[in-house]
Amino acid sequence: DFYHALEEVKPAFGIAEEELESCVQGGIIHFSPVIREILKEGQLFVKQVGEANATPLFSVLLHGHPATGKTALAARIAIDSGFPFIRLISPEDMVGFSEMAKVQHIAKAFMDAHKSRTSIVVVDNVERIIDWVPIGPRFSNTVLQTLMVSLRKQPPKGRRLLILATTTERAVLKQLDFYNSFDSDIMVPTVNTYDELLYILEQSEAFSPQEIDEVLGSIGDIHDNRRIGVGIKKILLSIETAKQDPDKVGRFARAINRAIDEDL
Amino acid sequence: DFYHALEEVKPAFGIAEEELESCVQGGIIHFSPVIREILKEGQLFVKQVGEANATPLFSVLLHGHPATGKTALAARIAIDSGFPFIRLISPEDMVGFSEMAKVQHIAKAFMDAHKSRTSIVVVDNVERIIDWVPIGPRFSNTVLQTLMVSLRKQPPKGRRLLILATTTERAVLKQLDFYNSFDSDIMVPTVNTYDELLYILEQSEAFSPQEIDEVLGSIGDIHDNRRIGVGIKKILLSIETAKQDPDKVGRFARAINRAIDEDL
Amino acid sequence: DFYHALEEVKPAFGIAEEELESCVQGGIIHFSPVIREILKEGQLFVKQVGEANATPLFSVLLHGHPATGKTALAARIAIDSGFPFIRLISPEDMVGFSEMAKVQHIAKAFMDAHKSRTSIVVVDNVERIIDWVPIGPRFSNTVLQTLMVSLRKQPPKGRRLLILATTTERAVLKQLDFYNSFDSDIMVPTVNTYDELLYILEQSEAFSPQEIDEVLGSIGDIHDNRRIGVGIKKILLSIETAKQDPDKVGRFARAINRAIDEDL
Amino acid sequence: DFYHALEEVKPAFGIAEEELESCVQGGIIHFSPVIREILKEGQLFVKQVGEANATPLFSVLLHGHPATGKTALAARIAIDSGFPFIRLISPEDMVGFSEMAKVQHIAKAFMDAHKSRTSIVVVDNVERIIDWVPIGPRFSNTVLQTLMVSLRKQPPKGRRLLILATTTERAVLKQLDFYNSFDSDIMVPTVNTYDELLYILEQSEAFSPQEIDEVLGSIGDIHDNRRIGVGIKKILLSIETAKQDPDKVGRFARAINRAIDEDL
Amino acid sequence: DFYHALEEVKPAFGIAEEELESCVQGGIIHFSPVIREILKEGQLFVKQVGEANATPLFSVLLHGHPATGKTALAARIAIDSGFPFIRLISPEDMVGFSEMAKVQHIAKAFMDAHKSRTSIVVVDNVERIIDWVPIGPRFSNTVLQTLMVSLRKQPPKGRRLLILATTTERAVLKQLDFYNSFDSDIMVPTVNTYDELLYILEQSEAFSPQEIDEVLGSIGDIHDNRRIGVGIKKILLSIETAKQDPDKVGRFARAINRAIDEDL
Amino acid sequence: DFYHALEEVKPAFGIAEEELESCVQGGIIHFSPVIREILKEGQLFVKQVGEANATPLFSVLLHGHPATGKTALAARIAIDSGFPFIRLISPEDMVGFSEMAKVQHIAKAFMDAHKSRTSIVVVDNVERIIDWVPIGPRFSNTVLQTLMVSLRKQPPKGRRLLILATTTERAVLKQLDFYNSFDSDIMVPTVNTYDELLYILEQSEAFSPQEIDEVLGSIGDIHDNRRIGVGIKKILLSIETAKQDPDKVGRFARAINRAIDEDL
Ligand SMILES: Nc1ncnc2c1ncn2[C@@H]1O[C@H](COP(=O)(O)OP(=O)(O)OP(=O)(O)O)[C@@H](O)[C@H]1O
Ligand SMILES: Nc1ncnc2c1ncn2[C@@H]1O[C@H](COP(=O)(O)OP(=O)(O)OP(=O)(O)O)[C@@H](O)[C@H]1O
Ligand SMILES: Nc1ncnc2c1ncn2[C@@H]1O[C@H](COP(=O)(O)OP(=O)(O)OP(=O)(O)O)[C@@H](O)[C@H]1O
Ligand SMILES: Nc1ncnc2c1ncn2[C@@H]1O[C@H](COP(=O)(O)OP(=O)(O)OP(=O)(O)O)[C@@H](O)[C@H]1O
Ligand SMILES: Nc1ncnc2c1ncn2[C@@H]1O[C@H](COP(=O)(O)OP(=O)(O)OP(=O)(O)O)[C@@H](O)[C@H]1O
Ligand SMILES: Nc1ncnc2c1ncn2[C@@H]1O[C@H](COP(=O)(O)OP(=O)(O)OP(=O)(O)O)[C@@H](O)[C@H]1O
Ligand SMILES: [Mg+2]
Ligand SMILES: [Mg+2]
Ligand SMILES: [Mg+2]
Ligand SMILES: [Mg+2]
Ligand SMILES: [Mg+2]
Ligand SMILES: [Mg+2]
Repeated sequence: DFYHALEEVKPAFGIAEEELESCVQGGIIHFSPVIREILKEGQLFVKQVGEANATPLFSVLLHGHPATGKTALAARIAIDSGFPFIRLISPEDMVGFSEMAKVQHIAKAFMDAHKSRTSIVVVDNVERIIDWVPIGPRFSNTVLQTLMVSLRKQPPKGRRLLILATTTERAVLKQLDFYNSFDSDIMVPTVNTYDELLYILEQSEAFSPQEIDEVLGSIGDIHDNRRIGVGIKKILLSIETAKQDPDKVGRFARAINRAIDEDL
Repeated sequence: DFYHALEEVKPAFGIAEEELESCVQGGIIHFSPVIREILKEGQLFVKQVGEANATPLFSVLLHGHPATGKTALAARIAIDSGFPFIRLISPEDMVGFSEMAKVQHIAKAFMDAHKSRTSIVVVDNVERIIDWVPIGPRFSNTVLQTLMVSLRKQPPKGRRLLILATTTERAVLKQLDFYNSFDSDIMVPTVNTYDELLYILEQSEAFSPQEIDEVLGSIGDIHDNRRIGVGIKKILLSIETAKQDPDKVGRFARAINRAIDEDL
Repeated sequence: DFYHALEEVKPAFGIAEEELESCVQGGIIHFSPVIREILKEGQLFVKQVGEANATPLFSVLLHGHPATGKTALAARIAIDSGFPFIRLISPEDMVGFSEMAKVQHIAKAFMDAHKSRTSIVVVDNVERIIDWVPIGPRFSNTVLQTLMVSLRKQPPKGRRLLILATTTERAVLKQLDFYNSFDSDIMVPTVNTYDELLYILEQSEAFSPQEIDEVLGSIGDIHDNRRIGVGIKKILLSIETAKQDPDKVGRFARAINRAIDEDL
Repeated sequence: DFYHALEEVKPAFGIAEEELESCVQGGIIHFSPVIREILKEGQLFVKQVGEANATPLFSVLLHGHPATGKTALAARIAIDSGFPFIRLISPEDMVGFSEMAKVQHIAKAFMDAHKSRTSIVVVDNVERIIDWVPIGPRFSNTVLQTLMVSLRKQPPKGRRLLILATTTERAVLKQLDFYNSFDSDIMVPTVNTYDELLYILEQSEAFSPQEIDEVLGSIGDIHDNRRIGVGIKKILLSIETAKQDPDKVGRFARAINRAIDEDL
Repeated sequence: DFYHALEEVKPAFGIAEEELESCVQGGIIHFSPVIREILKEGQLFVKQVGEANATPLFSVLLHGHPATGKTALAARIAIDSGFPFIRLISPEDMVGFSEMAKVQHIAKAFMDAHKSRTSIVVVDNVERIIDWVPIGPRFSNTVLQTLMVSLRKQPPKGRRLLILATTTERAVLKQLDFYNSFDSDIMVPTVNTYDELLYILEQSEAFSPQEIDEVLGSIGDIHDNRRIGVGIKKILLSIETAKQDPDKVGRFARAINRAIDEDL
Repeated sequence: DFYHALEEVKPAFGIAEEELESCVQGGIIHFSPVIREILKEGQLFVKQVGEANATPLFSVLLHGHPATGKTALAARIAIDSGFPFIRLISPEDMVGFSEMAKVQHIAKAFMDAHKSRTSIVVVDNVERIIDWVPIGPRFSNTVLQTLMVSLRKQPPKGRRLLILATTTERAVLKQLDFYNSFDSDIMVPTVNTYDELLYILEQSEAFSPQEIDEVLGSIGDIHDNRRIGVGIKKILLSIETAKQDPDKVGRFARAINRAIDEDL
């Protein structure tokens, strides 16, 4: 295919380090203890696949609201695993691919993984890979089935494979009977409390303590202690927009309030 | 493809100045303070992408009723950005394209944009690009997914990209889970009050003050101060038709009244 | 394509005079003052596109019940415009065409029109061009989108284009969001009153005054002054069939009554 | 296509006499005065197209229950017309054709007809030609649209064409908006009364008068004078089966009673 | 096609004796007088087509529950006809065929039959040939239409053809408007009474009289004289399984009871 | 196909011993007497096909909840049969295959089996082979029909074939009318009671007796003696994960409890 031909060649083996690091652009801010637990559970699965003889194949689904940091966390776990082979399967790398080209791209990634002693395959944004759209609903069943079967395909003797997938559409995967194909799953949370938001604003160094006070005062209704429920990525982005506006505090508050309302 | 082959070649790089200017044929009439606010918010996003290190990719959706000037405003913001690369993706440039040809046209526009330090891609009339039709409903999921993923595809390191899209079908984009892919959105209003209409009629220089009085008197029921709710483009066009008719005032009033009724 | 290859070649430029004239085979009988108003409104749009600088592109939809003379009236307006380029896009010229061949046929007609200073494109029987069928419903979305975008595609600078389309399915075009793509629309009426029918029968010279009396007496219930609601083409055809039958009056009355009943 | 290649070549011009005669295998039994009226109305349309200048194109739909003799009557009218060109379009001649091959077969038949001064095209069993099936429902829209447009395509100047179509699915054609494409229609009746059946049994010479009495006595409930409602073809076929059975009367009665019940 | 190429070549003419005999592997056990009536009615249709001049084409549908012996009975009638040409169209011979390959396979079978003076075509398991599946429902309309039209295609003058089709899905064929295409139909019964089952068990020589008693005692509730409603093929198969089990009686009874329950 | 070409060549004949053994990786733990009964019933069918003259073709469906050991049991029966030809048809071997490639892969497996005197074909995970997905629902009807017909295709004279299929979707196969195509079926149970779980934990040698007590104490509500209803494979996998966690007991209990809840 046209686009296919244009994409830059990547080595079949080895770790796509740079590509993975770019997924953790904003770092990992520990705004909640849950973040550390997620990273720990990831290490556990890495160990189970890496050391034990008995589990040559294991798959985990990271799910959560949009912009909660699913991709960043999966990338972090993969990078920290120390496994010699890591591969990222991402919709952004398959723009303009035909259904068959996608199937082959995916199949090839798993085949390559099967050639390494211990491997991790990160399948990012599963619903986008399968071209999911709620009207219809429509999706590529061919790609879906390829993913479902690849998840269960035993690596050759002596090879071990950990699969980390991410999605915002856990309910959809359940309806597709895809959710059951995973051996385990991890829920990635939104930023929920005013304390969590406060922590992030401080870390960002974009606001003075007084500005932070103003911001918190004008978000939602602080006395209700209403759930904020906005993803970390959205918060970091809104901070950047606010920085450009003379009315920094107002712009940020409006952006977050709109995000909160959309979530309702 | 046949038609594909016939379309005139355009330079891959540089600004499609003339094409963009033709979108602002009727100028920008400031019939409401909202118009200026829209242009300002556009500048803000231009700055965020152009100057900051932290936001290499940002996307904005301009939505509003038909004929409200969405395309003209997006074009204006893009022209005024001063960015070295601006590209317009428009359904009118893809007449007779196959689904795959569309995907490649879109993918190529984004790839070209990724090659410039700072770029703007205007995606005009999203619902038409995806061949949306409410009966069915039907649309090209392949093209839709291409747009959704292109919107999220990070430009290479050091490159920055602002995406401005327009649509009359915000509700549809929501149902398609496409709306959430945008980082921000701007609502473009219709001409709503008699004062706004008065201002436009004066600017047009097509009617004498007395004729303007007559027009306003015969539109809707002025005492109700009913919302007019007609797009600026429709109003400008009706002025042109009226100019040809000996009964200029009557023809214009009938046209606007019919437009008001259709909106109900 | 096979059939494609067999159709006789027509000059790309110039007026398809003969083809258009054959659409007005039965002449224009002025059975109602509305007929003249329709022709006048047509002239107005011709003037707006032909003379003004400000409206290089304008589209009008003629809609009405089957057999009401939509095609004849559109052809009449086009012929009388005096524009150097007139093109008829008709389903009858696309029998056996694939979807893609249709798209190219339509795109080519508009491209040719864009090459002339002032042009008219008549798009006849829109619902048939898009292969509309109410069961399903089904239609060619590819052809529909081509028409929708072609209607909005600006001719090159200095070129002007008037588009006249016809349809019996106005409600369908509304549901398809196609109706809104037109800048204006004209409703073509059926023959409704006994006086209108009387006028046509006299003009046909097929019946003696006494036979006309008999006919009117046996159609519907004259005292109710019920709407007749039959298209002019159907009436002219029934006159022809009646001429062959020894029982001329009876045959004509039965045909019209059946047409009236079908309309209920 | 494979099958296409195997079918025997037929002259493009001239009358398919033998093929048409084979449609009237069982002759025309005048079991009801309606049969003669149908043939007369057919002659009237033949005259209108053949003699008048004003009606170069006319189409008639013969509809009725299965096995009522629609094909035989259309063939009879065509043979008796004396027109130099008659063509039968029948599903049996398109077994194994692709959709496109069907479209071309149909288009070619009409094109050939357009080359003769006066022609008749018989379109047999329309619902089968369009691959209609009530589950879905499904049908070939491509073939349907080809038929609809072919019916309206004016022959070249000076040429005249009468189209006779048959169908058992009048309601379906109405739902498909196809029924309205016909200029007139003829209803073909079933055998309804005991007298009609009696007449046919006598004509068949298969039963003695006494056997006929027995038959009539054991069909339905003669005192109710219930509608029989069975097609002439089915009756003629049941007579043939009965002839093979020692219990001729019983076999025939059982067959007809089953047919009556199915009709309920 | 691949599989197509691999299948062994069969003579186009002549009787597929061995293939047909293999359909009657288990013989014809006359467990009910209905079996003989079915064979007789088959002979009647054979005579009608074979001897009479008047019925060159006749089609019969054998329908009944699964495993009732439909295929065996159709094969028996065909073998006993003495006709010089007999052809079996069976889904088992079309594994891996594309839709078009199926259409050609069917069309060819009928074309070959048309070349013989008197022929029988057995169309086995119609619902499987058309790829029927109740979810959707889905089926190959192309293959269905081919069968429907082939059933009605008159053989050339002087040739005669009897068609015997089998199906378990009579209701489906009705919904598909296919059922009406047959000139007659025969219902094949299940094994219903204890006496019928007793007769079969005796014929099988697999059980001692005492074992037969035990079997009958433990099937259903003999006092209810409940309908057994199991197909002969299923009964014969269960006898074979039982023979392998030390607990012959118990195994057989369990198998039949499960079959009875499934039928509820 | 691409992937097709890459898969390693396997001998057409002979037993895929290694592949089958890998399906029984975890051995067969006799946690319930039902396990032995299943293996016995399997032997019975092996004998019926292997020894008797009368049943050259027999098919059995193993169905049960996910992870209950269906594939392992089918593999065990096949390996223990001693038949000279055994073939496994598994979705994992058809990743990236087109629909047609799948059909040929399946057809070829059965054709190879037909060449051996006695054969077993294991069709693993039927719902995945047919690309079943509950949304829509969608599936490959072409592959489904191929399986349905292959199951009924008689091997050549003197050849005998046993088919063992597995599925988690018995209800789906019923709706697809596929379930009836099998001559018999076997239900594979989940681990249901605390005693069964206890037995497995002991066999695993991963927990001390005291730890086992703790585990059982914290699973579900032991006093309710609630059904556990978790598949053996899931239990074995959870044991492996637990082994990596310092809190072995807690991790295992959480995993099982989550599995129990999902089952509700
Ligand atoms: N605790 C955290 N967890 C995850 N990401 C974090 C955290 N703190 C900061 N980040 C930053 O937030 C961003 C999270 O974006 P990411 O793309 O991973 O979100 P996502 O959930 O995958 O979004 P989407 O739903 O759009 O796929 C990254 O830039 C990451 O570096
Ligand atoms: N305040 C204004 N905002 C936008 N356009 C204006 C304004 N004043 C005048 N115009 C003129 O009105 C026209 C607006 O047309 P435009 O095509 O942008 O509308 P649109 O909303 O994109 O229409 P559509 O819904 O058909 O895509 C342009 O010719 C523009 O020059
Ligand atoms: N006042 C009139 N308006 C239109 N047509 C007229 C009038 N008087 C006579 N005619 C004749 O009536 C016929 C109208 O047919 P025409 O094909 O234009 O109808 P139509 O509405 O396009 O039909 P359809 O719905 O089938 O497309 C023409 O032959 C035309 O010459
Ligand atoms: N009065 C009659 N009208 C029509 N056909 C008659 C009549 N009398 C006898 N026949 C014979 O009856 C048969 C009618 O069959 P024909 O195929 O025309 O019926 P049909 O309505 O077209 O059936 P189908 O619904 O299956 O298409 C012919 O063989 C014809 O010769
Ligand atoms: N009276 C009988 N009628 C039919 N078949 C019988 C009879 N007695 C014994 N048989 C045997 O029973 C078997 C019937 O199987 P057959 O395949 O014909 O059934 P079927 O109804 O076609 O099944 P399916 O519904 O699966 O197509 C054959 O082996 C046949 O020899
Ligand atoms: N009694 C048992 N029955 C079956 N498998 C067992 C048993 N005891 C241990 N096992 C082991 O449990 C595992 C069962 O996994 P298997 O893949 O057969 O399950 P399955 O039901 O086919 O799963 P799926 O629903 O995912 O296809 C195998 O590794 C097998 O060796
Ligand atoms: Mg992500
Ligand atoms: Mg616009
Ligand atoms: Mg018309
Ligand atoms: Mg007929
Ligand atoms: Mg059968
Ligand atoms: Mg399994």
